Amino acid sequence: MHTYMHFPVVYMTACLPQKWMYGGLDSNVLLQYLAWVTYPVVLITFSAGFTQILAPQAVGSGIPEMKTILRGVVLKEYLTFKTFVAKVIGLTCALGSGMPLGKEGPFVHVASLCAALLSKFMSLFGGIYENESRNIEMLAAACAVGVGCCFAAPIGGVLFSIEVTSTFFAVRNYWRGFFAATFSAFIFRVLAVWNRDEETITALFKTNFRLDFPFDLQELPAFAVVGIASGFGGALFVYLNRLIVVFMRKQKAINKFLMKKRLLFPALVTLCISTLTFPPGFGQFMAGQLTQKETLQAFFDNLTWSKQGLAEEFDYMGHSQAWRHPQVSVFVVLVIFIIMKFWMSALATTLPVPCGAFMPVFLIGAAFGRLVGESMAAWFPDGIHSDGTIYPIVPGGYAVVGAAALSGAVTHTVSTAVIVFELTGQISHILPVMIAVILANAVAQSLQPSLYDSIIRIKKLPYLPELGWGHHEKYNIRVEDIMVRDVRYITLNCCYRDLHNVLLTGHLKTLALVESAESMILLGSIERSQLQSLLSQQLSRTRRLEYIRERSVAEKKRLSEVSNPSSEDSNMRASQEVRFQVRSHSGCRERWYAVRYQPTLDFLPCLCCSEPFSFSFVGKPSMMPSFLTYFPSPLCVLQIAEWEEKQLDEQVNFNNCKIDPAPFQLVERTSLHKTHTIFSLLGLDHAYVTSIGRLIGVVSLKELRKAIEGSVTVKGVKVRPPLASFRDSGTTGTSSSESEATELHKLWDRHRSISLPREHVPSESDEKSQ
Amino acid sequence: MHTYMHFPVVYMTACLPQKWMYGGLDSNVLLQYLAWVTYPVVLITFSAGFTQILAPQAVGSGIPEMKTILRGVVLKEYLTFKTFVAKVIGLTCALGSGMPLGKEGPFVHVASLCAALLSKFMSLFGGIYENESRNIEMLAAACAVGVGCCFAAPIGGVLFSIEVTSTFFAVRNYWRGFFAATFSAFIFRVLAVWNRDEETITALFKTNFRLDFPFDLQELPAFAVVGIASGFGGALFVYLNRLIVVFMRKQKAINKFLMKKRLLFPALVTLCISTLTFPPGFGQFMAGQLTQKETLQAFFDNLTWSKQGLAEEFDYMGHSQAWRHPQVSVFVVLVIFIIMKFWMSALATTLPVPCGAFMPVFLIGAAFGRLVGESMAAWFPDGIHSDGTIYPIVPGGYAVVGAAALSGAVTHTVSTAVIVFELTGQISHILPVMIAVILANAVAQSLQPSLYDSIIRIKKLPYLPELGWGHHEKYNIRVEDIMVRDVRYITLNCCYRDLHNVLLTGHLKTLALVESAESMILLGSIERSQLQSLLSQQLSRTRRLEYIRERSVAEKKRLSEVSNPSSEDSNMRASQEVRFQVRSHSGCRERWYAVRYQPTLDFLPCLCCSEPFSFSFVGKPSMMPSFLTYFPSPLCVLQIAEWEEKQLDEQVNFNNCKIDPAPFQLVERTSLHKTHTIFSLLGLDHAYVTSIGRLIGVVSLKELRKAIEGSVTVKGVKVRPPLASFRDSGTTGTSSSESEATELHKLWDRHRSISLPREHVPSESDEKSQ
Repeated sequence: MHTYMHFPVVYMTACLPQKWMYGGLDSNVLLQYLAWVTYPVVLITFSAGFTQILAPQAVGSGIPEMKTILRGVVLKEYLTFKTFVAKVIGLTCALGSGMPLGKEGPFVHVASLCAALLSKFMSLFGGIYENESRNIEMLAAACAVGVGCCFAAPIGGVLFSIEVTSTFFAVRNYWRGFFAATFSAFIFRVLAVWNRDEETITALFKTNFRLDFPFDLQELPAFAVVGIASGFGGALFVYLNRLIVVFMRKQKAINKFLMKKRLLFPALVTLCISTLTFPPGFGQFMAGQLTQKETLQAFFDNLTWSKQGLAEEFDYMGHSQAWRHPQVSVFVVLVIFIIMKFWMSALATTLPVPCGAFMPVFLIGAAFGRLVGESMAAWFPDGIHSDGTIYPIVPGGYAVVGAAALSGAVTHTVSTAVIVFELTGQISHILPVMIAVILANAVAQSLQPSLYDSIIRIKKLPYLPELGWGHHEKYNIRVEDIMVRDVRYITLNCCYRDLHNVLLTGHLKTLALVESAESMILLGSIERSQLQSLLSQQLSRTRRLEYIRERSVAEKKRLSEVSNPSSEDSNMRASQEVRFQVRSHSGCRERWYAVRYQPTLDFLPCLCCSEPFSFSFVGKPSMMPSFLTYFPSPLCVLQIAEWEEKQLDEQVNFNNCKIDPAPFQLVERTSLHKTHTIFSLLGLDHAYVTSIGRLIGVVSLKELRKAIEGSVTVKGVKVRPPLASFRDSGTTGTSSSESEATELHKLWDRHRSISLPREHVPSESDEKSQ
Repeated sequence: MHTYMHFPVVYMTACLPQKWMYGGLDSNVLLQYLAWVTYPVVLITFSAGFTQILAPQAVGSGIPEMKTILRGVVLKEYLTFKTFVAKVIGLTCALGSGMPLGKEGPFVHVASLCAALLSKFMSLFGGIYENESRNIEMLAAACAVGVGCCFAAPIGGVLFSIEVTSTFFAVRNYWRGFFAATFSAFIFRVLAVWNRDEETITALFKTNFRLDFPFDLQELPAFAVVGIASGFGGALFVYLNRLIVVFMRKQKAINKFLMKKRLLFPALVTLCISTLTFPPGFGQFMAGQLTQKETLQAFFDNLTWSKQGLAEEFDYMGHSQAWRHPQVSVFVVLVIFIIMKFWMSALATTLPVPCGAFMPVFLIGAAFGRLVGESMAAWFPDGIHSDGTIYPIVPGGYAVVGAAALSGAVTHTVSTAVIVFELTGQISHILPVMIAVILANAVAQSLQPSLYDSIIRIKKLPYLPELGWGHHEKYNIRVEDIMVRDVRYITLNCCYRDLHNVLLTGHLKTLALVESAESMILLGSIERSQLQSLLSQQLSRTRRLEYIRERSVAEKKRLSEVSNPSSEDSNMRASQEVRFQVRSHSGCRERWYAVRYQPTLDFLPCLCCSEPFSFSFVGKPSMMPSFLTYFPSPLCVLQIAEWEEKQLDEQVNFNNCKIDPAPFQLVERTSLHKTHTIFSLLGLDHAYVTSIGRLIGVVSLKELRKAIEGSVTVKGVKVRPPLASFRDSGTTGTSSSESEATELHKLWDRHRSISLPREHVPSESDEKSQ
């Protein structure tokens, strides 16, 4: 017996009881049904609940997220220990339930989590593990490990992970992936040997097709048909999957109800699916009692199930028995299986549990291939080969081809071909598999995005879509057609007030630094956060305290000088300060009224310090912060505001500011195709468009995404890929500009609310600011 | 029978005659020897001569060149029709000779040539084929096709071509490669079916190992040993190959002789090798009569050759008979075979014919694996498996592992694993093969560059080396440590004289354009050729003629005005011109002397126009160029020189100049690792180092290469990879700065020689300049 997955013990205990409960209760159908249904419902509900509570990021496949992370966008919450625990336990339960769910995506995620946690742990010891690009390399290798140990397919694992997660792949990471994946596959299969399940290391779903004449040349058209049909099927699957998600989202009434009872949806879906597969019920027409693994073994079987339509010649050994039905032929069973599993898988993969879609799709593909193979076998009982020996048709070979083609179509990968070779341990069908996979990819890619890209769109992850097949017109769109000309910039000699104004607008993470507004020569870019800290430093608590301390020292001096007036200069200064202080005592009330009754007043709060105007003296005296004890007399708002105004008019000192002196620059005439390449290659978020040193625009991921998705009008013609209209359905409203609200606005609002003289505790806001 | 290569007819006719000649003459050993030796000598000599005459670029593998081309460096002469013809015919002859030569590299080159010629042909019809990046995509796919149809291995072909030609691979090209390679492999194998060699499409070197128990877990250490030993062997092969090339180059005396008789070296080498393999002679100890293909089939054989050392049990059927020798055991034969073939292959691949090294290395690896396998079989006659059934050891499996490991070690690729699976049609040994290949790669990569990188260094192709295994310290080297601080630049308001001075120095293809020498703000970069044409336009023949024409018009006017002096203004101008002309007549001789006797004089030639100072009038009157007929009176050098001086003092007008407004910029603190990545990703030739807009340095491929090869001293410590000293041996003196001589100097010299008043034909130099 093969161990089906990496957690053999858990899986065995999770899957056997259902069978045992079901088998032991064969006297009573109702009890049988209850046993059959309760088990998956409980497991899925637990999995959904557990994941929901511990880490909602663990839901779903994980490959779309990894794709986004490897693209350079940091999604930190997806690589935490909590997510790891939730994913492992949630996945184990979900798989144990027997639902049509896969594990390759979660495995990729789990492996990446391991790698991320490992790098985090290693970075404690310093060295190269602190390096960002090193971590990305580790994650890329981890993805290969995930797929590799899922199918015991090191090569296929590496290739599949490259295809689904990378746009540009660094060949120097290649051996890392192979190294990691080989060892993961080795350990995975060695466990089977140590468990005495296997005598030695072999393939997971070993086939035993004949080597001397694996297939006839004249069978190739049939294989091609399998490929093309799988292409359409794959596109349909992705479409159906998205349709379900979008439908569930749109139904506000259902949604509201389900949001309250989050576990009801998974429970209902599980109940529905397990009811339909109940073996004495409808399940008898679709081999409901078999697990995924048994089903796949049956499909890859060497023997032909339908020999000239005679039920007597049917081979009953093994799991093939499940496919026999006294009333209906094997073809009908297969068709029912395919149709039922198709929508069930599409539905089940939308459940909020850790799950993938690869394995269910693989299974459906195998079923479809088997159907074609059985048909061929029935059509040509003595094989097609005309001269000499009779070589009967091997339907198992068709199943292999179909599995590779459909999974390739859904994921838009070619490496599923390699995976099936490693999975079956035979490479004899290489040409049919390759042809079918390529044809399936061609069809599916022209109709729909891949399943992972579809999920990326649904989840609105910050990812750049691929240039599709028909991207010829992408060579004609130029950067100048899509760039934003109204760039936010700061000049080298700007004052803090300009900084403040610029920070209030725009959404990009970095701002351009130009020489002057006239020359517009781009000098570099500065991160928004850097500017914010620059601004808050200028108006910081420390500087404020410094100012106050200076004042208080001067005050004391003045007091001592009043008793001993020695120098005129100090006397002069002291009198000025008195004037200030006097004014503060009178103006303080006035200021409050201004704030209270004239909210439209042009009034500049400090941005990051949480005590914009020391209110301490309007609060209770006992809550007065300790630093205020410095004051000989309490300070007033107007005074501080005046100080702030003065500070804001100072010129910005960029000396302590981290400036990126070489932000990426494009030219107006750069084609969209090249821009896309550069963005993908370097994982850029935005690039400035310059013309002989002068900043004239900026292109961010958003613009690029829009342009690629075909909503840019160039030269009066709406440029869209031929089949884009079909692709776009269900993904409208994906623009995420609203969600990218600037934090500055929030900050502004917060200050505004704070500055109102309510029952305000300064020490509390003090904590918040830290 | 399998057809061994893509040109089945040629090959069959090329290989059979030798055997036939040899077989038919078994009465006389001398005649046999002559027949055995003459045939390869003639073929190799013809191949070398033909290639030498038609296109010397066709010599060798072609993979290093393709790697360089795909890196972005245009080597146009490698993609011409002539090269195509030379490569195809030369390769056919070379392979037919029976020398230990491979064909995978040439196949890659031939396929790329097809793709390049096809794109060139298609670009006649316009459209996307005119796009540069499209052509690169086609070339990448072509490389996959080359390997794919060489081994009938579509997947391995794609992966191998990616590994040997790319640094960063665009995943969107992935399916293109698979598509092309699948069809090439399909057509290749279908030919075999149509030739009635095969019943259906199968693997090229089909093996028939048992599927149920391919190997025992306890055999894995033996496989690992094969891998490690192959790693050392691969490094040794690369080292030996380079040693031979370097040795041949260094021996000036031999070299001189061989340069005269270019075909002597190949003939001698061929004679030597074929003498040693002569079957009745030394060849009997190394199965000399077998072709590469037969040898490989024998190695992959299922049966054990040495069963407990008894020659009686030896299986004599097929090609295995060649391995039996009455006196010596099979082990000795294998050892002799490995040693002899090792140096023979290393030597033969240095021949100036189109040839690869993959197949010979593959063969040696298979022999080594077979040796280990036979030893294991002799050591454990009943297999290692302890309980239950006896599973004897399969030496053929070891041969497969050894072949993959050694070829992987020599080429630094992991995908040889996939190639052997596709080549043998069995994937059952996946884990041993993967482990051995990875270990072999680990060992070989730490000792030597790959064979292709080694050839790149020998040929001094403009390529960036890979970051090796131990590249941790690469994170600590910064751009500021390696950059050239003395950047050649031009300012926005420079005059043509500055342009001229700048063009005389430096070697980079582009020059930086800065705002001013004080601000040093980088505005863009201009190609050297653009500047040259700008300068030559300023001093162009047209402008010169314009000037002369104007002058002659003025002269005529003056003459007419002398008779009718109406305006004072024109009179004034005319008198000035007279003064010029008078001075020219007197100064002309003087100028010539200055040029002749004072070569150190600061004397500015026109750079691109080939008639710097119209000497026409010092030549024979009959050779006077037609434009000089404009002159009312002949012009003199000094006058023109004066005009030129004036022109050179004018400010440069950059309006019609193509400026790259966004050259790639780095920062001082960018790590070497990141710089390497960016250079490889974007295929850069150089990048400017800026600090807040200010140009402070430049890094070109040369500096980067130096830094990576470990000759940069940082922080007082010489940074070198651990085993670099071994790697460097034999590659000293690879710095190619001398070869990158500026064309400008040549131009300068040419002008100098032209400017001497010899028997000079202006119309000839006129042609040259166009």
